[in-house]
Amino acid sequence: MTAPAALTALFGDRCRTDADTLTEYGRDWTRYTEPAASAVVFPTSRDELVELVKLANRDRLALVPSGGRTGLSGGACATAGEVVVSMEKMDRLLDFNQTDRLITVEAGMVTEVLQQHALERELYFPVDFASRGSSRIGGNIATNAGGIKVVRYGMFRDWVAGLTVVTGAGEVLELNHGLEKNNTGYDFRHLFVGSEGTLGFVVDATLKLARRPKELAVMLLAVPQLSDVMEVFNRFRRDIDLSAFEFFSDQALRHVEARGLVASPFAERENYYVVLEFERIADSAETMALDAFESLLENGFVTDGVLAQSETQAAQLWRLREDISESITPRTPYKNDIAVRPSQVPAFVAELDALLAREYPDFEVVWFGHIGDGNLHINVLRPLDMDIAAFKSACEQVNTRVFGLLQRYRGSMSAEHGVGLLKRQYLDISRSEAEIALMRRVKAAFDPNGVMNPGKLVA
Amino acid sequence: MTAPAALTALFGDRCRTDADTLTEYGRDWTRYTEPAASAVVFPTSRDELVELVKLANRDRLALVPSGGRTGLSGGACATAGEVVVSMEKMDRLLDFNQTDRLITVEAGMVTEVLQQHALERELYFPVDFASRGSSRIGGNIATNAGGIKVVRYGMFRDWVAGLTVVTGAGEVLELNHGLEKNNTGYDFRHLFVGSEGTLGFVVDATLKLARRPKELAVMLLAVPQLSDVMEVFNRFRRDIDLSAFEFFSDQALRHVEARGLVASPFAERENYYVVLEFERIADSAETMALDAFESLLENGFVTDGVLAQSETQAAQLWRLREDISESITPRTPYKNDIAVRPSQVPAFVAELDALLAREYPDFEVVWFGHIGDGNLHINVLRPLDMDIAAFKSACEQVNTRVFGLLQRYRGSMSAEHGVGLLKRQYLDISRSEAEIALMRRVKAAFDPNGVMNPGKLVA
Ligand SMILES: Cc1cc2nc3c(=O)[nH]c(=O)nc-3n(C[C@H](O)[C@H](O)[C@H](O)COP(=O)(O)OP(=O)(O)OC[C@H]3O[C@@H](n4cnc5c(N)ncnc54)[C@H](O)[C@@H]3O)c2cc1C
Ligand SMILES: Cc1cc2nc3c(=O)[nH]c(=O)nc-3n(C[C@H](O)[C@H](O)[C@H](O)COP(=O)(O)OP(=O)(O)OC[C@H]3O[C@@H](n4cnc5c(N)ncnc54)[C@H](O)[C@@H]3O)c2cc1C
Repeated sequence: MTAPAALTALFGDRCRTDADTLTEYGRDWTRYTEPAASAVVFPTSRDELVELVKLANRDRLALVPSGGRTGLSGGACATAGEVVVSMEKMDRLLDFNQTDRLITVEAGMVTEVLQQHALERELYFPVDFASRGSSRIGGNIATNAGGIKVVRYGMFRDWVAGLTVVTGAGEVLELNHGLEKNNTGYDFRHLFVGSEGTLGFVVDATLKLARRPKELAVMLLAVPQLSDVMEVFNRFRRDIDLSAFEFFSDQALRHVEARGLVASPFAERENYYVVLEFERIADSAETMALDAFESLLENGFVTDGVLAQSETQAAQLWRLREDISESITPRTPYKNDIAVRPSQVPAFVAELDALLAREYPDFEVVWFGHIGDGNLHINVLRPLDMDIAAFKSACEQVNTRVFGLLQRYRGSMSAEHGVGLLKRQYLDISRSEAEIALMRRVKAAFDPNGVMNPGKLVA
Repeated sequence: MTAPAALTALFGDRCRTDADTLTEYGRDWTRYTEPAASAVVFPTSRDELVELVKLANRDRLALVPSGGRTGLSGGACATAGEVVVSMEKMDRLLDFNQTDRLITVEAGMVTEVLQQHALERELYFPVDFASRGSSRIGGNIATNAGGIKVVRYGMFRDWVAGLTVVTGAGEVLELNHGLEKNNTGYDFRHLFVGSEGTLGFVVDATLKLARRPKELAVMLLAVPQLSDVMEVFNRFRRDIDLSAFEFFSDQALRHVEARGLVASPFAERENYYVVLEFERIADSAETMALDAFESLLENGFVTDGVLAQSETQAAQLWRLREDISESITPRTPYKNDIAVRPSQVPAFVAELDALLAREYPDFEVVWFGHIGDGNLHINVLRPLDMDIAAFKSACEQVNTRVFGLLQRYRGSMSAEHGVGLLKRQYLDISRSEAEIALMRRVKAAFDPNGVMNPGKLVA
């Protein structure tokens, strides 16, 4: 492969076309597409991005913004000769202010590095998920990442106080200037959050930081019935501001345990488990949590439970949940990341469970998710002897039914992971024809020649 | 006045053209424009709104959405023969769910009625401001209202989980379906929040409700120097999640006291006052607050203080701040509602204070605001013998300088009140040329014939 001369002129040896780089940067965490990038470039400044976008408009190049490539919808994949634009060399801390509790970082900063910067300053960046060690801020913003603390702290969008972006037309916009209050017209900041690289590049972001919570208490509960999980949620939440409420099936747990790194603390197996977390804001919080546990135990909604007695134990309980994704990766899981309103989870899950048992009788299905937000991850595992293409098409057939059910519940066909390449064909499950037409018109306003991430979302 | 026949055909006696109605519904809380509506209509359903918008597109009528008309930027004013569309007959509660903590209401519901609905259900709607008894949900959403609890609970936008809108093209969009997580493309919900009626009508909204806070503690502090107010803010916030932090000048207090309804609890006058509020989440909260007060007193940052000992006293302290707007209304205040980052408040205020003293030597200037968010309300009072037009133009001359200063600080020229009619000429203080051009293109996508609130914001 040779890159267009203009690209090499702009990026020098930061434009790469060797096979390894093209493969590595041509894909994300999913493994359903063949990487086929024509070049990978590594900009180091905003001005370089502007030049690149202008070049792309002139020569009709297709650009794929690339963060940590932990995305789960193929949004950062290059499958048709696109130029991948890795933001990883733009990862500096630009500004911090203690009074404002604001931090400004470049889009290529790794999520966990940002979290560390906050802690070092006695503050807290609360959006958190298992890919934190690899994902990058620009990717988090472009996907509006969610994760395990949404019940208390909301989505990534809620922490974005300002954005610098380069649009698909090569214009630099400085959106909202880090202000808490700024009612001066349409809020394009929120349009860029979740736009999956189809409107332009996120160059840097000014993010809010929270008060650092006091010690966090972590509990693991054993729950016989999935339909009771919301009961458990409601009982705890009555008195306590939960900062996490996650569930997973015993099958999920077995995959984690098979790696030999962590194990269930319970003597007996149970069908489902819940990890919950809350701030020990005062002693009363723990008392209230134990009261809640006792009453749930009495009524049979939970059958066992443990409250972590140390930070180490808390971290171990968390790993039971957080290691699931990695532990099933070798099985190329087909992921559905769906959400309904929390109150509808029990009825929805009952119908879905029956449907999956009927439609996927031969496949292993692993359930987990951020159930406090109504968000369920359904992972269908590939039989080890089945090839990827056949498996994908089998899953897509069942999708029609899963999504049909979901549509009846007015749910989301992608709660967290975004639409990207893999969920594009299902967009009309959650968005109307009129909305999709409007998305295209808005896309055209920001990216008139369609150079930004073509083939993804609505592009 | 007679209304177009098609309007009377559609609305019958819910289309009004009598002089009183035209005047009353032709203006908002501001008094700087002459009301000149051609008709006022009162729709009662979504379908009627769709018909109306189609009619407007056909006959090129200009529509002005109208809520409680407490707006402070002239957004709901009709000054050029527009048809005012009052949402007040659409004020029903449509849905509520305890598990989801979601409530769905029509756009015409009064803000305070919504707050009451929440309390009756043991929950809490935390966006709050002095106009709560008259403003309506659709107006709150269209202006992204802020208010006194933003430091803890954020802006109105943060509580909108779903919206039904009718666009300027007459399309019905059901945005986000009340889901917590829904990453399926551009979030048009956030585009409508703060769009000031220029993209379409908000028909109904699904709003999040919060846990009802335990008892709220309210303190009033006397602060000699405005530049120290942020010091006081930081000290309290170190240990406590403040739910409000408001300041006002002694001049503001005197206007409130002049009405004879409430009075300062302090023996001495002071230059500035702060009202702060926090949740008595545990006994420790009050101890920490009193510690903070003691140390601030020792260092001279505050000179006096009182912690309300009853709900009645708390309400009285709040009135000292909340009655300001009403108490100065007879003086037709010229309002600047500006914001900078909190850390920049002291330096900005010092410069601004000098500027105002120099430029408005003959005018009384009253300061108050939500200073914890960097938001200052500057009210210039009209000398009682000066006519409104002359006063307005004098104020606008000084504006050039105020906004020049603000632009250096990268602040917002309308923190809460929106742009509407009155701040339209200043939009470029806070938004770039490229942004304004994009706003126009987005506006055209939703409202191709420009029937929605022409002359406001960017329309
Ligand atoms: C083990 C594991 C656990 C996960 N858990 C969660 C979870 O709990 N919650 C959750 O929400 N997600 C989760 N994810 C998904 C993923 O981590 C998130 O979507 C993350 O935000 C992606 O960030 P990234 O930097 O890796 O983005 P990438 O995969 O590199 O890119 C994602 C999208 O963003 C675009 N993009 C990237 N950078 C920019 C930029 N600077 N400007 C414009 N567009 C850009 C890309 O074009 C692409 O469309 C998980 C993934 C893994 C592997
Ligand atoms: C005493 C007083 C105190 C105030 N304090 C605050 C404060 O602390 N914080 C704050 O943010 N504001 C404050 N305000 C301003 C005002 O109350 C808010 O802007 C409020 O949100 C306006 O609501 P409304 O229903 O009165 O809107 P209106 O004035 O009727 O309309 C405001 C705008 O919204 C549009 N609109 C109304 N309804 C709809 C709809 N259904 N669909 C589409 N567009 C619509 C109108 O066209 C207009 O552009 C205060 C006002 C007063 C008088």
